[in-house]
Amino acid sequence: MSYQAPLRDMRFVLHELFDVSGHCQLLGNGLDRELIDGVLEEAASFTANEIAPLNRNSDEEGCRLENGQVSTPRGFRAAYRQYVDNGWASMTGPLEFAGQGFPQLVACAFHEMLMSASLSFRVYSGLTEGAVLALHKHGSAELKNTYLAPMVSGQWTGTMCLTEPQAGTDLALLRTRAEPKADGSYRVSGSKIFISGGEQDLSENIIHLVLARLPDAPAGVKGISLFLVPKFIATAEGGLGERNALSCGAIEHKMGIKGGSTCVMNFDGATGWLLGEANQGLACMFTMMNDARFQVGLQGLGIGEAAFQGALRYARERLQSRGLNGAQAPDKPADPIIVHPDVRRMLLTQKTLVEGCRMLAAYTARQLDLEHGHPDAAARKAAGKRAALLIPIVKAFFTDMGQEVASHGVQVYGGHGFIREWGMEQLMRDSRITQLYEGTNGIQALDYLRRKLLGDGGAELSALIGEFSEVADRAAQRPQLAALAQVVQARLGEWRELTAEVIAHSQRDVQEIGAQSVDFLQYSAYVLLAGFWLQAAVTAQNALEQGAGEVDFYQAKLASTEFYVRRLLPRASSHREALLGGAACLMALPAEHFAF
Amino acid sequence: MSYQAPLRDMRFVLHELFDVSGHCQLLGNGLDRELIDGVLEEAASFTANEIAPLNRNSDEEGCRLENGQVSTPRGFRAAYRQYVDNGWASMTGPLEFAGQGFPQLVACAFHEMLMSASLSFRVYSGLTEGAVLALHKHGSAELKNTYLAPMVSGQWTGTMCLTEPQAGTDLALLRTRAEPKADGSYRVSGSKIFISGGEQDLSENIIHLVLARLPDAPAGVKGISLFLVPKFIATAEGGLGERNALSCGAIEHKMGIKGGSTCVMNFDGATGWLLGEANQGLACMFTMMNDARFQVGLQGLGIGEAAFQGALRYARERLQSRGLNGAQAPDKPADPIIVHPDVRRMLLTQKTLVEGCRMLAAYTARQLDLEHGHPDAAARKAAGKRAALLIPIVKAFFTDMGQEVASHGVQVYGGHGFIREWGMEQLMRDSRITQLYEGTNGIQALDYLRRKLLGDGGAELSALIGEFSEVADRAAQRPQLAALAQVVQARLGEWRELTAEVIAHSQRDVQEIGAQSVDFLQYSAYVLLAGFWLQAAVTAQNALEQGAGEVDFYQAKLASTEFYVRRLLPRASSHREALLGGAACLMALPAEHFAF
Repeated sequence: MSYQAPLRDMRFVLHELFDVSGHCQLLGNGLDRELIDGVLEEAASFTANEIAPLNRNSDEEGCRLENGQVSTPRGFRAAYRQYVDNGWASMTGPLEFAGQGFPQLVACAFHEMLMSASLSFRVYSGLTEGAVLALHKHGSAELKNTYLAPMVSGQWTGTMCLTEPQAGTDLALLRTRAEPKADGSYRVSGSKIFISGGEQDLSENIIHLVLARLPDAPAGVKGISLFLVPKFIATAEGGLGERNALSCGAIEHKMGIKGGSTCVMNFDGATGWLLGEANQGLACMFTMMNDARFQVGLQGLGIGEAAFQGALRYARERLQSRGLNGAQAPDKPADPIIVHPDVRRMLLTQKTLVEGCRMLAAYTARQLDLEHGHPDAAARKAAGKRAALLIPIVKAFFTDMGQEVASHGVQVYGGHGFIREWGMEQLMRDSRITQLYEGTNGIQALDYLRRKLLGDGGAELSALIGEFSEVADRAAQRPQLAALAQVVQARLGEWRELTAEVIAHSQRDVQEIGAQSVDFLQYSAYVLLAGFWLQAAVTAQNALEQGAGEVDFYQAKLASTEFYVRRLLPRASSHREALLGGAACLMALPAEHFAF
Repeated sequence: MSYQAPLRDMRFVLHELFDVSGHCQLLGNGLDRELIDGVLEEAASFTANEIAPLNRNSDEEGCRLENGQVSTPRGFRAAYRQYVDNGWASMTGPLEFAGQGFPQLVACAFHEMLMSASLSFRVYSGLTEGAVLALHKHGSAELKNTYLAPMVSGQWTGTMCLTEPQAGTDLALLRTRAEPKADGSYRVSGSKIFISGGEQDLSENIIHLVLARLPDAPAGVKGISLFLVPKFIATAEGGLGERNALSCGAIEHKMGIKGGSTCVMNFDGATGWLLGEANQGLACMFTMMNDARFQVGLQGLGIGEAAFQGALRYARERLQSRGLNGAQAPDKPADPIIVHPDVRRMLLTQKTLVEGCRMLAAYTARQLDLEHGHPDAAARKAAGKRAALLIPIVKAFFTDMGQEVASHGVQVYGGHGFIREWGMEQLMRDSRITQLYEGTNGIQALDYLRRKLLGDGGAELSALIGEFSEVADRAAQRPQLAALAQVVQARLGEWRELTAEVIAHSQRDVQEIGAQSVDFLQYSAYVLLAGFWLQAAVTAQNALEQGAGEVDFYQAKLASTEFYVRRLLPRASSHREALLGGAACLMALPAEHFAF
């Protein structure tokens, strides 16, 4: 399937909504508008011409495991070489290790493009950036000097090794062990499953970050430590040394992302080094978890964009039936199906969910940048809290959204949507994993409600709602936007009240936390997106009033806001009512009475 | 994946809700409770032991086309032979052609089991029953005498050949031609796509029902006729005669139902016979379309049941994390995940959607039976109207439900849900076609709103609402059910008001028909299911008060009603608000401004 990055919308979000140039100035890097636009154009060309064309075949061909070696699909090796050689791998890497230090606010646009072009290809590079973060923060100087530069360049890749057969969500159950050796290193033994890119033929070396237990570790999650375990142990000169005692035991047969290897990794007394403090592994891993979850959110966004593009192309070309109000293309045997209201409903649902999530992604990326790079410590802390609140929403809502939007894409194609060669069903299959990995979406919702909301009594969320309440106030002053602003403002007030109720219920009955979490996350996301759409409408209205060109573009923003508020924001109502339905009706039925 | 028919719930629906024995008496066939239960137990055994075990492999192996011959997956031939030999194929066939004349109210339970066990296997037999209906109603005595008996027995199968590359939803565009020959037969020429079971190695002969145009036919749908075009022309003695000039040109590579062949069928001057009147083909085809759409609805239901069973099994066995209120299985390393409220939310969503749809399926089957077999003509007509109103809801809502429930199944399994060997992802892939074929779900919604609702000004729907309003009145008199009855009664009133609004909007602006249709169908289905759940609760409450055994079973019905009304019925709110959002925001954006 062909793919073209939505550059105009990305520029709208980066420049017009979030002033990325000013953002870069604040962060003290020298990126200006011209340079950023140049990078985005190069990125668009790279993803359209080098990556997207590989995607369909990678699904048919899949990966092969022979004698412990994984072969990736045709074209992936050459594309990965370009990815490294052209500097795409090092985009966000730290400057002192030859990275380019791009802020997430720019990088997220490129990463979205990668996801749209091929989720399978992104499997191999996606976790390296997070591993770089964890190593950079927790590694010894020696480890950093040895391993970081080739990981930043993409010459070497990184993985996250958490899951074991008996330990998925519940890492307390993990059994992999690490025994100290005399030289300060460790012997790591155990079996990990679901390791994305655990073995492949793209990079010279693979650096595994592995959670394991020390011999004297306490039980549960407080006894888990993080280890760096390379496939090849680096020599002092940074070359490839001894092959470590680890191997790929199997690759999984999956629903989708078939071009990305998902490996069983066996560590048989492999040499590893402790990252961070002993028994602090989970906290160390969370350094990369936020990044990984943000990236998975971008996967949902990228799949959504690809599905929208495919559906829109088909809806404009496919001729079938006449418009309800008569022929729209009387010179043709039938009208293009984009004339039908229900096809438009699906397309606009796709468009406004994708573009809405793109705004929220950029907003979150900006917070991640400020958390790490704002000159002021208090501002760094504030941005960190905001990012932490939003990450579970981005991960869960974007990936649910991606699945829904991909499914609309299939539906717009009719029966052809079910046929492999059209590429639409692959998007559904590929995206389905995103709701599961890096913490299922149910776990994201628990994180949002329990840690992020109850953790500070709702203070951070209240501030976020306040921010958008100001947006709605500004919008209310524009006659063209006043009606929409009123609807959104009412929802923001409802959100505030609902938050108080959710907290009260959770304090009264601990089961309410899990009973409300998913619906509350969904509710929050729908209202939040309405806030972003209103902000987009204000920006578009300003541009129109200031006589900017591209009138069609800005009017499309206004029409999209209208659609989102009138036809999608109502979904918040059901989530609100459902969660107010309470925990009792969930907990009443004994487990043995579910089936008869 | 193992599968066990939900016999207890089926008996609840058939006997306790719909008095199937009385129904059979009214229809004048000799089926009693004992016989029906015996058939259901045999059916459960057949589907569990002979069909379900083939399903996983059929997905991996798929179908092969070589030299025009399609090979079905391993085991399908033997299973199909049993299906015919044991009389499952002839269950609903007309008595005068050696069918067993079972009512749909009984058959729908068996057909649901078939769908749960293997959607791919059902591809081959699913349309034969509809073809029998069409031939029985529209065929000449000679055609019926020649072709019906072996089709009823399942020795020969039937297909529906409608779609062409340029003509899917819009049959006005179809080009296949039929030229009259001197002997009263026709030469049929053209290419049809997406023909389920168009070619296979299971049955001796395949009888294609083909839509085509006569040479002098008017343009559009008024110039379409229906033809019977057999693979082998039957001899006068009912044997296999000349091989007809038709062939399978290709089989599709699909997202799912890979064990079912989906064929491109080329008719190269094949001999065919007219069914019914010239240019009345669409009306004739609709004889089988209602049955086909009902069967597709059952596919959604069957997939849902299979996904629920898989998820429930896993949720009871998988140990992960502790309950929010502390350890529930302190002797184990962690609690079974069914203790977690959010897992219960997914399981109960599956359970109550599936069981709710099972009640609606039986209700609709009963109407179909009465339409054909009630002794009183007025009652036949009334039942026909009721069935016509419900068929699009059954087809669209059940298949959307099946997809959702399959997706919950994947989610309950976590990462394992994405792995093929567990079988959950296959259910998602298999079920995705059901939202597309036999008229996309968008087309079902248009049919519901335009033909069924506007067609009689809402009279039939009003009668349906009234029926459930009486159920709610009865429930309101039971102290234990009064609160739930009030909620449902309020929704029924809201449904009535909304119907009036929908009709008014549609009369004001024709675009509102397509702008409201999907949300109105979904709204209707959620409220309707609440009515059925309330009815189930009344029945369960009666049983408990009358001291019936199986207290757990009946209490589970009460708990399920509570869950459905509190946590799923709220979805109706969003659909209502969304459709009231109107058509204007769908139609405003010019087609060329959707993407930038």
